[in-house]
Amino acid sequence: MSAEVGVGLIGLGTIGTGVAKVLRNNADVIEKRLGFPVRLVRIADLDLETDRGVDLTGIRFDDDSDALLADPDVHVVIELIGGYGVAKKLTLTAIERGKHVVTANKALLALHGNEIFAAAAANSVEVAFEASVGGGIPILRSMREGLAANRIESLHGIMNGTTNYVLTEMEKTGEDFEVVLKRAQDLGYAEADPSFDVDGIDAAHKLTLLVAMAFGAELTFKDIPTEGIRNLTPMDFDAAEEFGMRIKLLGIAKSVAGADGRERIDARVHPTMIPRDSLLANVDGAMNAIAVHGDAVGPTLFYGAGAGELPTASAVVADIMEIAREIKRGTAGRVAPLSYLPEHIEAKPQVAMGELFARCYLVFTAEDRPGVLAQITAVLGENGISIESVIQKGQGEAGGSVPILILTHPAKEASVRAALDEIDRLDEVTAPTRLVRIEEEL
Amino acid sequence: MSAEVGVGLIGLGTIGTGVAKVLRNNADVIEKRLGFPVRLVRIADLDLETDRGVDLTGIRFDDDSDALLADPDVHVVIELIGGYGVAKKLTLTAIERGKHVVTANKALLALHGNEIFAAAAANSVEVAFEASVGGGIPILRSMREGLAANRIESLHGIMNGTTNYVLTEMEKTGEDFEVVLKRAQDLGYAEADPSFDVDGIDAAHKLTLLVAMAFGAELTFKDIPTEGIRNLTPMDFDAAEEFGMRIKLLGIAKSVAGADGRERIDARVHPTMIPRDSLLANVDGAMNAIAVHGDAVGPTLFYGAGAGELPTASAVVADIMEIAREIKRGTAGRVAPLSYLPEHIEAKPQVAMGELFARCYLVFTAEDRPGVLAQITAVLGENGISIESVIQKGQGEAGGSVPILILTHPAKEASVRAALDEIDRLDEVTAPTRLVRIEEEL
Repeated sequence: MSAEVGVGLIGLGTIGTGVAKVLRNNADVIEKRLGFPVRLVRIADLDLETDRGVDLTGIRFDDDSDALLADPDVHVVIELIGGYGVAKKLTLTAIERGKHVVTANKALLALHGNEIFAAAAANSVEVAFEASVGGGIPILRSMREGLAANRIESLHGIMNGTTNYVLTEMEKTGEDFEVVLKRAQDLGYAEADPSFDVDGIDAAHKLTLLVAMAFGAELTFKDIPTEGIRNLTPMDFDAAEEFGMRIKLLGIAKSVAGADGRERIDARVHPTMIPRDSLLANVDGAMNAIAVHGDAVGPTLFYGAGAGELPTASAVVADIMEIAREIKRGTAGRVAPLSYLPEHIEAKPQVAMGELFARCYLVFTAEDRPGVLAQITAVLGENGISIESVIQKGQGEAGGSVPILILTHPAKEASVRAALDEIDRLDEVTAPTRLVRIEEEL
Repeated sequence: MSAEVGVGLIGLGTIGTGVAKVLRNNADVIEKRLGFPVRLVRIADLDLETDRGVDLTGIRFDDDSDALLADPDVHVVIELIGGYGVAKKLTLTAIERGKHVVTANKALLALHGNEIFAAAAANSVEVAFEASVGGGIPILRSMREGLAANRIESLHGIMNGTTNYVLTEMEKTGEDFEVVLKRAQDLGYAEADPSFDVDGIDAAHKLTLLVAMAFGAELTFKDIPTEGIRNLTPMDFDAAEEFGMRIKLLGIAKSVAGADGRERIDARVHPTMIPRDSLLANVDGAMNAIAVHGDAVGPTLFYGAGAGELPTASAVVADIMEIAREIKRGTAGRVAPLSYLPEHIEAKPQVAMGELFARCYLVFTAEDRPGVLAQITAVLGENGISIESVIQKGQGEAGGSVPILILTHPAKEASVRAALDEIDRLDEVTAPTRLVRIEEEL
């Protein structure tokens, strides 16, 4: 029971470096919890030159990932190179060679998870991926085990630290999206190509995994309606404040009964206004939080750093430790990776966006003259949309455009869309109307 | 692999009824996650008459706990009777008979955990107790596994729903402690004898378990300084608001380096002022939350219902499911109950309250006449305590007493105590000075 478990790391970037640091700095507490050591025996990366500021003494470090995958001293392979191509090939090769895999690669799993998990089951190895959702937050473990007695009813998550940082800054400074994004890029909080983050794709990858785990529903990344934060303006944050709300980019998933009584999944990613006094509304900066509602446990929330060297490494090393315990006891496959056993994960119909029923925040841009508001509200009324409140911002320049902010009572999205199409065709309306959905029950 | 795991339940009170409901209502999702059924085969309770509103068809229900413990169809015993006497005897008997035990009994474990965990290890069975801390929140699992790669630095928890409900109501209504407590009792949120809750004892039981798990420190319930909420007044909540804070009853535990470089544990339960914009400050009503700070993961927070029939049952059934997996695979003892292996749990010295260094909120009650404030501040100054702000409440009746509220800069508790002793002996001071400690880094 005291022989060590050997770990091979592919990709010594930010997170890989964090993993090397945690395995070294916390070796004592890790061994006091496991009863045996976990040792990083080998690292593969193309860049052998950059000093990562971590002591790699005693660790074989080269650029040969094939040799790492063939090394009998490597029992667990940590895949931290990201992307779909090479990462997928390396992951499947590791699995075929009977090695367990730990990854933080949500994109890979959201798109190719079915194939990868099936290969892992066929080869009796684990694919662990706690770090892929919510960074250091142990949300996947909690879904799989801590809340395992529950029928999950809904989840609402701030699952992308970059966008949450941008939204928090926009709210605080009143600056435009592009200004704040540029600063986030300069500070290293956002990538040079920010689209995975700001267009909601990264959040949708993560939501795909959570939907499968929450509802036993097949991985359906392509079916998740996804809208990012590029269109938000400082005015929207002011309006949210007036309405007692804040704006967050949420991944949302609910199990709802269809008209035929069959379960359907309502899953989507979009900017959302939520009540200011909810815990989720108070999650600021690059932090993440996932609120999960179970039929027995009721509301829960899990909060922590969603990214970063050491927080993400915390999750990777937790996975290594769990696998190390299983290696020692020969119990790989103790818990199904997506919580439900593979044979119980079904394709479930998705709720179309048009069927959504929610309060909406609408921003109309119209010529500043009498009668325009009446025209707009008439179209809303004809489409069965009733209005809760209206804010008409002060006069613009003579003959210029002014924003009209309207909060609706709960309305069907298809009706709202039909009304907006009609309103946007009015001569007096000078820019496309914007819509932010409101969620109240978190 | 498809034979069922049998569960015997001792104690069909609120939580026991919840367990019966969850096992019945969610049998399908439980089996889809485990791959085999978990069945409640037997219940023992002295009250065979009361209708609990749950279908017990097919479950043997009598008052014979001895027979339950002897039943070969019972693989897992759920102890939900509470207290130290009978509960301890039943638990140890179950363990000796090779049965796994699930319990929500924090009092039992805080006081007799060492003996019970040792017996479980000797008999190769599990004692699981997720429900004993934070109700439905999977905090113990998260400490043991999700954050296992971390050196835990501190934790701050709202761990008692009754007191959090009372504090939230006092703040909201401005009513006195006794009035709100009475209402909480009428609503069933507080016991007829509320002392376990309002004097902080229940929170200290829970903190005892968390301290062991966080730091590998021996269970030391008796050493945890514990102060309840009975002395708080509506004025204190107003003052907290003026200072940008809220008052919560917290269990606090930190690992700190002593002057000799040796690790010491700072563990305590007391009403605490915390910044209004912290997540923990926004946990209201009967909800619980535990903020855990790890060296790798940084700040995390786990939120959910800390009590109640179904939330607590959610945690009990999660434990049953984990044990059921282990029974199927013969892997009891996969994870150490207190996170650190027993041989690595050490007695660690405790930081004495006098050594604490914190900002303090002080409420002096003094005669309403010139010079009194000068006297009080002089004594504080002589004891090296510097003042951040003072609020002197409006005139009382002529010759009556007025409260003087002082917020100090960080000061050593022993110095504060010495100053208060001296101040309370002044002729002009008409009631004992009250102290609420402030925590800023959560």
